[in-house]
Amino acid sequence: MPQVGVIMGSSSDESVVQETVNILEQMKIDYEVRVMSAHRTPDKVREYALQARERGIQVLIAAAGGSAALGGTLAAWTTLPVIGIPLASSELKGMDALLATAQMPPGIPVACMAVGAWGARNAAYYAAEILGLHDEQVRQAYEDYRRELRER
Amino acid sequence: MPQVGVIMGSSSDESVVQETVNILEQMKIDYEVRVMSAHRTPDKVREYALQARERGIQVLIAAAGGSAALGGTLAAWTTLPVIGIPLASSELKGMDALLATAQMPPGIPVACMAVGAWGARNAAYYAAEILGLHDEQVRQAYEDYRRELRER
Amino acid sequence: MPQVGVIMGSSSDESVVQETVNILEQMKIDYEVRVMSAHRTPDKVREYALQARERGIQVLIAAAGGSAALGGTLAAWTTLPVIGIPLASSELKGMDALLATAQMPPGIPVACMAVGAWGARNAAYYAAEILGLHDEQVRQAYEDYRRELRER
Amino acid sequence: MPQVGVIMGSSSDESVVQETVNILEQMKIDYEVRVMSAHRTPDKVREYALQARERGIQVLIAAAGGSAALGGTLAAWTTLPVIGIPLASSELKGMDALLATAQMPPGIPVACMAVGAWGARNAAYYAAEILGLHDEQVRQAYEDYRRELRER
Amino acid sequence: MPQVGVIMGSSSDESVVQETVNILEQMKIDYEVRVMSAHRTPDKVREYALQARERGIQVLIAAAGGSAALGGTLAAWTTLPVIGIPLASSELKGMDALLATAQMPPGIPVACMAVGAWGARNAAYYAAEILGLHDEQVRQAYEDYRRELRER
Amino acid sequence: MPQVGVIMGSSSDESVVQETVNILEQMKIDYEVRVMSAHRTPDKVREYALQARERGIQVLIAAAGGSAALGGTLAAWTTLPVIGIPLASSELKGMDALLATAQMPPGIPVACMAVGAWGARNAAYYAAEILGLHDEQVRQAYEDYRRELRER
Amino acid sequence: MPQVGVIMGSSSDESVVQETVNILEQMKIDYEVRVMSAHRTPDKVREYALQARERGIQVLIAAAGGSAALGGTLAAWTTLPVIGIPLASSELKGMDALLATAQMPPGIPVACMAVGAWGARNAAYYAAEILGLHDEQVRQAYEDYRRELRER
Amino acid sequence: MPQVGVIMGSSSDESVVQETVNILEQMKIDYEVRVMSAHRTPDKVREYALQARERGIQVLIAAAGGSAALGGTLAAWTTLPVIGIPLASSELKGMDALLATAQMPPGIPVACMAVGAWGARNAAYYAAEILGLHDEQVRQAYEDYRRELRER
Repeated sequence: MPQVGVIMGSSSDESVVQETVNILEQMKIDYEVRVMSAHRTPDKVREYALQARERGIQVLIAAAGGSAALGGTLAAWTTLPVIGIPLASSELKGMDALLATAQMPPGIPVACMAVGAWGARNAAYYAAEILGLHDEQVRQAYEDYRRELRER
Repeated sequence: MPQVGVIMGSSSDESVVQETVNILEQMKIDYEVRVMSAHRTPDKVREYALQARERGIQVLIAAAGGSAALGGTLAAWTTLPVIGIPLASSELKGMDALLATAQMPPGIPVACMAVGAWGARNAAYYAAEILGLHDEQVRQAYEDYRRELRER
Repeated sequence: MPQVGVIMGSSSDESVVQETVNILEQMKIDYEVRVMSAHRTPDKVREYALQARERGIQVLIAAAGGSAALGGTLAAWTTLPVIGIPLASSELKGMDALLATAQMPPGIPVACMAVGAWGARNAAYYAAEILGLHDEQVRQAYEDYRRELRER
Repeated sequence: MPQVGVIMGSSSDESVVQETVNILEQMKIDYEVRVMSAHRTPDKVREYALQARERGIQVLIAAAGGSAALGGTLAAWTTLPVIGIPLASSELKGMDALLATAQMPPGIPVACMAVGAWGARNAAYYAAEILGLHDEQVRQAYEDYRRELRER
Repeated sequence: MPQVGVIMGSSSDESVVQETVNILEQMKIDYEVRVMSAHRTPDKVREYALQARERGIQVLIAAAGGSAALGGTLAAWTTLPVIGIPLASSELKGMDALLATAQMPPGIPVACMAVGAWGARNAAYYAAEILGLHDEQVRQAYEDYRRELRER
Repeated sequence: MPQVGVIMGSSSDESVVQETVNILEQMKIDYEVRVMSAHRTPDKVREYALQARERGIQVLIAAAGGSAALGGTLAAWTTLPVIGIPLASSELKGMDALLATAQMPPGIPVACMAVGAWGARNAAYYAAEILGLHDEQVRQAYEDYRRELRER
Repeated sequence: MPQVGVIMGSSSDESVVQETVNILEQMKIDYEVRVMSAHRTPDKVREYALQARERGIQVLIAAAGGSAALGGTLAAWTTLPVIGIPLASSELKGMDALLATAQMPPGIPVACMAVGAWGARNAAYYAAEILGLHDEQVRQAYEDYRRELRER
Repeated sequence: MPQVGVIMGSSSDESVVQETVNILEQMKIDYEVRVMSAHRTPDKVREYALQARERGIQVLIAAAGGSAALGGTLAAWTTLPVIGIPLASSELKGMDALLATAQMPPGIPVACMAVGAWGARNAAYYAAEILGLHDEQVRQAYEDYRRELRER
């Protein structure tokens, strides 16, 4: 049963999202990956978000570029914490996605990460920090990673 | 029966949206005004958009600030033309809303106007241009306005 | 008889505009393509815009980079709806064209799309949305496309 | 015993941070507020962060303007989830703080909220989402708030 | 007979343009002031530009905000040197007008000044520099001003 | 005897400046090219600017990237019209040079062109417009070019 | 005999520069204040910079807005360390001055501080850090201030 | 015994930092190079900064990209002058690092250089200017370089 749902707005975002997935695997966090778009498949996003909590998911990660509504739309349909990865996939190279992800109106927060691969990796680490509050194994894996960072 | 649905993300946006309304009235275009948020009331937005065409609405106008997902969310649920007014309501003063409104992904267009009151007025004029393609009275009212602009 | 006029500011913009054309063809929308510049050939733009409506054109699509006056200039000479595609052809990579296209003064609206190929495709879809208000065949083609997007 | 530590970089940020505090109180989340600076009092930040988890704190909220290193510095010293509120306190009005908060390098995530008061409120709601994963009372309070948002 | 034509896009720009006028008067440069818009009154702009040279005008100064096409449109219709003053009249506070004025495509130059009052004053000084190449009186007046600047 | 002095801040800018030179040659405008830097060789710039008018030069063209003080420095030392070409040679790709060139303080104008090759070409055309006010041959060459642009 | 020369581009910048002066006085650093402009009084800047070292000055502080060439011009004429304070005096509110101050070409460094009053204060502290390398009294005053910051 | 400590946030920044090193060697300035991160190894940064002065170091140079807290963190722990080199290593290409480095709060200055290789070189030259105040050999080496720049 996945603890984390990783959603990307387009299958063309796959290579960046793979960075998230790799880290979730290293942390032994159960996850699932879905491709769905706030704009092209809003009903899939709605259904996914509405059912996420009861399916046992605890954190949602949303990667999208351009006007990047995916994170905000998931957040609109659920009260699970949503982590947004702004992607540099449009001609404006991520400044658009960064502002769209970060500038959420009061009441519906999204946790905005850095643009692109940095953010993709940090989304997984941030999920580990959240899960680690009550999952000793995840916490340990993340602490180990951080120790390794320090000692490298 | 309204031809144009004017939606604002928050009732605090009312004074800017009034500029849209004033012009729709001058053009004798039937309209309705709604307050609903892509993030706070996504189901209201979804239902409104899904029913808009069969209720006779031909153009949607969406005013929102910050991550400004309103226009894109309406566009996701309908195939009616959506006109977006990016508002300067966040601390970033509209650059966020402009990019979020304009940078829509392929397949789900939104017609982005200028930030703030300029865009609020032009949204009404653009609606008049669209309606004017098949409504001689609206077209005439808009042509009269444009003539007046030229002769002022 | 073309329903849509697709104008590019320079023949060097052709590959991006081809994205618009491909979609108009898929939607079976009649169109014509012209190269003319608001700055280099203002009289061609003026004449084209002044005659567009009586030639049966219903929507104008203008693709331009840099100071990107093409959409606004067409809009100045006609009351047909104009859709602007800001291009990333200058050294500033489209931020200039985006602001020039979106920030139209009150009275003369232009519908600004995303920068570059995203916008080029959406300009065609937005034209389909406008035409589809009174052209059942176009509407059906666009609805089919949107359904396909959802089901892909 | 506080579940959430709310840190501001300067006492001049107090009025914005009050928005965070008001919401934590509404959600009946135990919190504490501290003024400390990544640049002016780095040892206080270090000690605070190093002891936070054992003191029972589960989420850190950091509000700072300008180069806004507070969130990242806390994140450097702890593996608790850190939520950053970029403030518009410098002459650049928050764009600096937004980029500094969001663009964290891989390994040390910070959850960036919107600039200023929007972000101050959302930081509290995001904390509620995280705590609500294992605290039924907080979750209920947040769900109630979200329901109220929908029904307002 | 005016040597310089000062054009503003809207009568609301009058107070900034007054800065230009004051300096032209100090330099004893003959000028005329017109209000006309590239978007609202394109025919007036066209006629004005087409006749400017034969009416004895040697330099055109164009002040406009937002998408700021005025300078570029004048330049499109004449081969006289055009000086553009980008104004901070839109919600984006002049960054839009600056990029639109400066980023002219090859072949149709506009001399972009600073945004707002700085640029309004410098437009007059730049006109003095151009006229001063062949008008000893203007040159002397400008040299006197520059000497005064140095000695103040 | 050169009418136009073309100055570049660094010999690494040579390929862009070649665009200026090519057009000056096409217009049969006499010119000279110099490499000197406002920062690295300020005395050369000062001497060049102080002597330019008496050497018969009528227009100065300055190409520089980054903080791009070259145009402003030349303008500080002479009352000849200076045309600035902001170059995209720094990591910020010309936005820095554009602002530095355009945002001159009142009293010392520089005519800012577009970033990079567009501006390099337009600097030559703008020089032709200035010289063409009193040099019938240059004016004719430029009018011919503009006619060709229209008819291409 | 002054150790630090504080230069402002315009007397209208006086209130911001006063922040620098106040701190230099608190640190008991000898200083002098001058108003001179890289653009309006280049010879004054040149002479001042050329004589600064032999007059015993060890650090130059330059405050300027807009294209903000003052710091770079001083640096061009001397090998003393120059600290630049970008001011928000133009319509672009300091982003222009920040880029112009920071983006110096290789060989002629300027130490860029924050925009406006933050930078004005830090320029004085940075001067104290430089002087404190060999002036025990200044170093002690600055260490005291830093201790006070920590203990406040 | 090193006079200058050159710190980079990540070993992937090595090629840019090599530009700094090359110049320090040309100036015969003793230096050491360290890789440590404000975020990943904060204790290393703290210890390094706390011991730097007593180890004889006089100037610190910090190269970092993204939220670029390295320079500010070093400055927080020491009163030695810190020179920051913002790197273009994130998807936002250095604008993030530039703002994070320059926009330091009052009390804790960092001398921000240009983004990337320009700044890497100027950091070394600025260190030479500081050291040259009391080290005749360094001063001479730097003066020689500047003379060579002028004469090249």
